[in-house]
Amino acid sequence: MHQRRVATPTGAEAIVAVLAEVVGELRRHVDDVAAVGVGVPGLVDRRGTLRFAPHLPGVVELDVGRLLAASTGLAVRVDNDATCALRAEHRGGGARGTGDAVLVTLGTGIGGGLLVGNRLARGAAGFAGEIGHMVVEAGGRACTCGGRGCWERYASGTALGRMVKDAVAAGGGDRFASLAGGGPEAAGGEQVMSAAAAGDAEAVGILEQFAGWVALGLANLVHVLDVERCVIGGGVVAAGDVMLAPVRAAFSRLVMAPYHRPPVQIVAAQLGERAGAIGAALLAAEGSEHGKSA
Amino acid sequence: MHQRRVATPTGAEAIVAVLAEVVGELRRHVDDVAAVGVGVPGLVDRRGTLRFAPHLPGVVELDVGRLLAASTGLAVRVDNDATCALRAEHRGGGARGTGDAVLVTLGTGIGGGLLVGNRLARGAAGFAGEIGHMVVEAGGRACTCGGRGCWERYASGTALGRMVKDAVAAGGGDRFASLAGGGPEAAGGEQVMSAAAAGDAEAVGILEQFAGWVALGLANLVHVLDVERCVIGGGVVAAGDVMLAPVRAAFSRLVMAPYHRPPVQIVAAQLGERAGAIGAALLAAEGSEHGKSA
Repeated sequence: MHQRRVATPTGAEAIVAVLAEVVGELRRHVDDVAAVGVGVPGLVDRRGTLRFAPHLPGVVELDVGRLLAASTGLAVRVDNDATCALRAEHRGGGARGTGDAVLVTLGTGIGGGLLVGNRLARGAAGFAGEIGHMVVEAGGRACTCGGRGCWERYASGTALGRMVKDAVAAGGGDRFASLAGGGPEAAGGEQVMSAAAAGDAEAVGILEQFAGWVALGLANLVHVLDVERCVIGGGVVAAGDVMLAPVRAAFSRLVMAPYHRPPVQIVAAQLGERAGAIGAALLAAEGSEHGKSA
Repeated sequence: MHQRRVATPTGAEAIVAVLAEVVGELRRHVDDVAAVGVGVPGLVDRRGTLRFAPHLPGVVELDVGRLLAASTGLAVRVDNDATCALRAEHRGGGARGTGDAVLVTLGTGIGGGLLVGNRLARGAAGFAGEIGHMVVEAGGRACTCGGRGCWERYASGTALGRMVKDAVAAGGGDRFASLAGGGPEAAGGEQVMSAAAAGDAEAVGILEQFAGWVALGLANLVHVLDVERCVIGGGVVAAGDVMLAPVRAAFSRLVMAPYHRPPVQIVAAQLGERAGAIGAALLAAEGSEHGKSA
């Protein structure tokens, strides 16, 4: 397997150009390319158009499937990145063996993929899984989507970073900053997870607050969908049980009727940041239409 | 078709006894009864056990399917009442012709049925659709489920009634009370809807506040599931567009990327309070196992 990582450039044209360049480079390593699979963040419709992307400023109605097909001469299939990641995690990762699961990626925002009755749920237009934009605090923090109080304002990697910076600003900075090997401005989620793993009480407190928000959204999803497994991806799960144990504890306090339902598994994703690319490749291999799951 | 209405008695044994009595009475009108379908509020597992019911105090782990089968000698299938109602509305009501919809019944609480990719979603244990217990205001009003800030504390028929009583207590009672044909304590959702239909500004304001909460939860469900239709049931939709128009207006402000997605239809359920019973009969006719959808 060959892989190449590039930073996401700014602007629709630049994104398509970079995708074409990456495809071109990878083709030099592969004899016989049948199709290209692409996972992109945001609302992807069933024709492979990225219609809205809260975390890619200015990118709307980007017909990424057709443009990339035109510039590469290959068949291209496009889907939401988290749905791609779930496709991969279901095939051979943290969602294996279950028919009702959510994949929740805690990163810049919160991505979501839904497995309902053993099928990937796509929704009417292909937009299912925008779980980061469930409102969990009506009228709360402003979100990049234009709304207020969205879950990802409280439970994404970005939100954890903000909680750490708030703690630094409130005077808890010295330890986190020294762990970060820099000034207080370098302290973020990684440092607080390291400090929590080492038993630092303030770090444990920050993680518990964050875990409470993560668990609240998971409980919402369990109440709506009755999934039996929540698969958590994104950088914050690198800390393993340091993060997942408080999430599980908070979840057990928030889920309805815990003594009258089978336990819900809250586990880490297994395929790391390559899950989206693996799932996009699986999508391409399925040979279905743009963005349409089997 | 024959029907009989009885009030829900208190306690598990009394509920099963009343169900058996109703079945016995209806059998006198029907020659050849093949099976009984039952819709009950709460968490119904795939064996037909009502495991938890937030609005039936003290009822847990009630094996209603097996008990009713034993007392009637008939095959019995049990499912959640809102899922039954969606089964009926999908067959021949407000959810007809769509493959991705939610049924939302605004009553004592909020019931939910989910149609995902043209199938009723049941969830891993059979508990899918507990949409009333999505938290929309973290740490908010206490709920009968034991949680706080659940959607049904803000957007159920009960919540509308509370808003009206709050308005009465704050001095807006005279008009609502006279509409109710009694003292201020008689004023409720019906009166405020009548007053709003007649143009009463305070009543319109109360309905808009309520509609905002309804729309907030609908937007959450659309973000998670990308349904193309929300079918609203329960007594409050008797008012028709007096209620639905402000819900639609608030929804269009709350849904993410409204200009980049197909419009979401927000419509009234068509089968009224009999939808649950019709859907339960359809369930029985499907001849599947307890509570298991086709």
